[in-house]
Amino acid sequence: MATSSSHLLTNRAPARGLVIVNTGNGKGKTTAALGVLLRAWGRDMRVGVVQFLKSEHARFGEIVAGRRLGIDWIITGDGFTWTSRDMNETVARARHGWRLAQERISDGRYDVLILDEFTYALHYGWLDTHEVIDWLKAHKPPSLHLIITGRYAPPALIDYADLVTEMTEIKHPYNDQGIRAQPGIEF
Amino acid sequence: MATSSSHLLTNRAPARGLVIVNTGNGKGKTTAALGVLLRAWGRDMRVGVVQFLKSEHARFGEIVAGRRLGIDWIITGDGFTWTSRDMNETVARARHGWRLAQERISDGRYDVLILDEFTYALHYGWLDTHEVIDWLKAHKPPSLHLIITGRYAPPALIDYADLVTEMTEIKHPYNDQGIRAQPGIEF
Repeated sequence: MATSSSHLLTNRAPARGLVIVNTGNGKGKTTAALGVLLRAWGRDMRVGVVQFLKSEHARFGEIVAGRRLGIDWIITGDGFTWTSRDMNETVARARHGWRLAQERISDGRYDVLILDEFTYALHYGWLDTHEVIDWLKAHKPPSLHLIITGRYAPPALIDYADLVTEMTEIKHPYNDQGIRAQPGIEF
Repeated sequence: MATSSSHLLTNRAPARGLVIVNTGNGKGKTTAALGVLLRAWGRDMRVGVVQFLKSEHARFGEIVAGRRLGIDWIITGDGFTWTSRDMNETVARARHGWRLAQERISDGRYDVLILDEFTYALHYGWLDTHEVIDWLKAHKPPSLHLIITGRYAPPALIDYADLVTEMTEIKHPYNDQGIRAQPGIEF
């Protein structure tokens, strides 16, 4: 049996920054990234978030928490398919978000950076997946841990990543039982 | 397309506490629970953790973070299969952890409680799954969100839960590439 707890700390090898992808249709993609961020913050690592989809209420709890923890947290993008009427605007926001992420990746200011819901920008072609990966290969500092979340992670991103986890919905109360979303739990 | 962001806050129905299970062989079971905890903490909800497996180094980052955030965080159990030579001790610790959890569930002190790696106590029979579920049905406050993590979630627990997510490993650097575990990322 090997859970994460069985990996013990050794300081022999230099830290290598991992590219981590949390994808799939289930819950837990963003929250697992936030849990890693919390762990890293507990170790006084330098952490940041670039959030590629904005939603009015949906992310309130984590944004307040991030602010209280002094975490650099950038919200970019819009609610796209649910609310956007202007796809040019959606694409422009995704590209703007990526430029902000590029600055923050290349200047080495973080130990851990989350690109939250970034996969949608790739999946829907607002950014070119291969260009993004080529840029990361050239510019990501070796020690930076990069966590990318969202459904529909493109195969090329999965190839590039070190650690990929798929979150699968086994049972969901909103589908099955008509229970409303819960503040602090869902958002 | 429906991600968690599409669930908007409505205040029409009373909050119902969900029983959430994060299981599977992949990463992200505990970290997703911690991300939910962070969201809830950001909303000034009362949150706590009962951690059923102890490991020397493995949980350092999150425990420090929890302490800084003022989160009630109880560590119980031992490292069991990896380190324990005395199964009676392992079983006794699991049962002690469950008693502490029962107190904290029944007295209504939390809005969100994580029973971290609790599934092992059920899977290995240190606690009786049906007794645990019957107790929860009788004593869990209706508004309490309970998050249970760990591999091998028993079918009866999945039946009882409202929301079940399986984390599946698609790609893992420790298996595939021999990269060492990373402080702040893995633990």
